[in-house]
Amino acid sequence: MHVDVLLTKTISKDYCVYIDQLESLAFDTKVLIVTNTTVADLHLANLQTKIHAKELHSVILPDGEKYKNFESLELILNACFEHRLDRKSLLIAFGGGVIGDMTGFAASLYQRGIDFIQIPTTLLAQVDASVGGKTGINNTYGKNLIGSFWQPRAVYCESAFLKTLPKREFSAGIAEIIKMAVTFDRGFFEWLETHDLHDETHLKEAIYKSISIKATVVAQDETEQGIRAVLNYGHTFGHVIENQTHYTTYLHGEAVAIGMVMANCLAQKLGLLSQEDAGRIMALLKRYDLPTHYAIHSPEVFYDAFFLDKKSEYSKIKFILAKGIGAHEIRNDIPKEIVLEALKEANA
Amino acid sequence: MHVDVLLTKTISKDYCVYIDQLESLAFDTKVLIVTNTTVADLHLANLQTKIHAKELHSVILPDGEKYKNFESLELILNACFEHRLDRKSLLIAFGGGVIGDMTGFAASLYQRGIDFIQIPTTLLAQVDASVGGKTGINNTYGKNLIGSFWQPRAVYCESAFLKTLPKREFSAGIAEIIKMAVTFDRGFFEWLETHDLHDETHLKEAIYKSISIKATVVAQDETEQGIRAVLNYGHTFGHVIENQTHYTTYLHGEAVAIGMVMANCLAQKLGLLSQEDAGRIMALLKRYDLPTHYAIHSPEVFYDAFFLDKKSEYSKIKFILAKGIGAHEIRNDIPKEIVLEALKEANA
Repeated sequence: MHVDVLLTKTISKDYCVYIDQLESLAFDTKVLIVTNTTVADLHLANLQTKIHAKELHSVILPDGEKYKNFESLELILNACFEHRLDRKSLLIAFGGGVIGDMTGFAASLYQRGIDFIQIPTTLLAQVDASVGGKTGINNTYGKNLIGSFWQPRAVYCESAFLKTLPKREFSAGIAEIIKMAVTFDRGFFEWLETHDLHDETHLKEAIYKSISIKATVVAQDETEQGIRAVLNYGHTFGHVIENQTHYTTYLHGEAVAIGMVMANCLAQKLGLLSQEDAGRIMALLKRYDLPTHYAIHSPEVFYDAFFLDKKSEYSKIKFILAKGIGAHEIRNDIPKEIVLEALKEANA
Repeated sequence: MHVDVLLTKTISKDYCVYIDQLESLAFDTKVLIVTNTTVADLHLANLQTKIHAKELHSVILPDGEKYKNFESLELILNACFEHRLDRKSLLIAFGGGVIGDMTGFAASLYQRGIDFIQIPTTLLAQVDASVGGKTGINNTYGKNLIGSFWQPRAVYCESAFLKTLPKREFSAGIAEIIKMAVTFDRGFFEWLETHDLHDETHLKEAIYKSISIKATVVAQDETEQGIRAVLNYGHTFGHVIENQTHYTTYLHGEAVAIGMVMANCLAQKLGLLSQEDAGRIMALLKRYDLPTHYAIHSPEVFYDAFFLDKKSEYSKIKFILAKGIGAHEIRNDIPKEIVLEALKEANA
C-alpha cells in the first residue's frame, strides 16, 4: 500500500539581473535591508531614498568573511522577528558576497522562505555571487557547508556602488570574470586581453558578459548536479588556501586567482592546457595585480584539506580544469601522485 | 540591460509513502539515522538490521518538543560533518514529528541539501508530519518559525512501531486523522464514527486515508500559498495553547483537538457549522480521550498571541473553519469582537 506525493510546482522562479536600472523600487510589504557597517556608511542613506515600502527597516552587520557565521544569521533572523515580518515581506541584501549569501540564507529560512532581492555592491558579488541562489554560512568545518539554494526575486547591479570599492576588492572581482572567460568563452577571454576594465564602459560590458555566462550555466543546472560545478574552477584550490590562511590573508577572489594557476599546473600535466595558454591566463591575472603564487608548506597536508571541501566526495576530488582557453573538463579520476606533483610545480 | 535567469528544474521530487512495506533497504552511500533516546531503546537495533549502507551511522537526540531547537539541529549537522557525509549521503528520520522536522531541516541545510527518508514511529507523524516536506525548529518567538520546505525521498509507515506507543500519543495522532476528515471528507468522518481505530485493520485503513488526503493537498500547494493552510485547522488556536503551557501540558495533537473545538465555536457563531455537527466532532474527539477544553485566562491575551503565529500576517489572522463536516473555509476577515466572543464561549 502506498500513496504518491506528486509535486508539480517548482519553488524557484525565474528572475532578472538588471544592470544600472535601479531608480526606485516600491513595495506594498515590509522590507528589511541587510547590510554591513562599511556599505551602510557609504551608501545606505542613498539606497533608502530609492526604496518605498509599507515599512522600511535595516539591520547592519559587522563587515568581513569572518562574520559569515551563525551569529550573524541570527542577527538577521532576529531583526525579521522583531519587525514582525510576514510571509509576504522582503529582504534586500545590500553588500558584497558575504551579505548576499547570508541574507539569501536568512530569507530561505524565515517562515520557511520569503522573497529577497540582491543589490550587490562589490564587483565580485555583481559578476558572480549575487546570481544563482547559492546561500550559506561558514563554520569550523569549512566554507558554505551549511546553506540552501534560494533564488533572489531580482538582482540589481549598479556600477555607481563600485566607485567606492578598494582596488584590491576590484581586482578580486576581475578574477571571477577571468574565471568565466577561461572556462566558457574564448572570445570573451581574447576581448579581456585587449580591453582595460578600468574603463567604465568596458567594465559594464564585462559585467554583463559574466552574468550572462553565469545565468546560462545556472539555468541548466540550478543545484549543481553537473555543469554548474565548472564555476568552481580555481575554487577547490582556493578554498584550501583561504582555510590555511584563516580567511585573513587573501580576499576570496585573490585565493581563486592563485587557485586557477594551481589548477592550470594540473591541467598542463594532464595535457589539457598548453604552456602558452597557461601563460596568457597568468598574464591577465597579473595585469590586475592579482596574486598568482602561494607558498605550500606541505603538498600532502594541502591535498588532505581537499576532502574537507564539500564539493569532494570522500576519496574522490572533483577537479575543474581549463581545456585550452574557453572550455573545461571535470575530472575526479586524477591519481594523488599527479596532483602532488602539480602542487609541487605550482610551489616552485 | 538585463539578463534573464531561467530556471527550468524543480528542486522537489515526487515520492511515495509506503505503508507496511519496509523489509530491507540498501544504499550504496553513507546513511545517518537520526533518532531519539526513547525510540533508540525500543527500535533502533531492529531498524539497523534492515538498513544496508556503505557506512551506517546514527545520532541519538534527547526526546521531546522542547529539544526541537537549534542545539539539536547542530547535533545532527555535526554528526554529518564528523562522519564526512557527502552530497550523495542520506539521512533517515526515525522517530516522531520532532525528529522528522529536525532531520528534514538538517538534510535541507547540509551542503545545501541532501536526501532524507522518513520512518515515522508515532501515529501523528505517520498520518501528518512525515508527509509534505515542512521542516523546522522552534525558537523563543514560537513554533517552526525557522525552517524550509524539503521533501523526503520516501516515507515508510510501519504499524509495528505503533505498538509501543503510549496511549496519549496514540490519541494525539487520532486528532490529526479527525482533522483531515472534518475539513476534507465527510464520508471518512462517518466511517470514523462507526469504526474503532484500536482495531489494527481499521487503523491501517485510516492511516492510508489520512495520508492520501494530505498527499492530495500537498500536491496542489506544496508551499502553502492556498489550500494547504486548511491542514492548519485547529492549529491556530492549538499553537497558542501549546505556547501558553510551554509545550509541557499538552501533546501537539491534544492541543490541536482543543483548537478544533475552539475553531468550531467560531464557525458556529459565523453560521458555518451546526450545533449538531460540532457535537459530532466533539464526541469523536472524546471517544479517544482527547482533551476538548482549555481554561483561557484572558481572551484578549489569547487573541494577541495569534499574531506571533507565522501563519498570521500582522493584523490579519487566517482562521481555518469547518464548513459543515467534510468541507472548510479560510477566513481572514473576522472582526476581533467575534473571535473574542467565540473564545469566551469555548471557555464557558
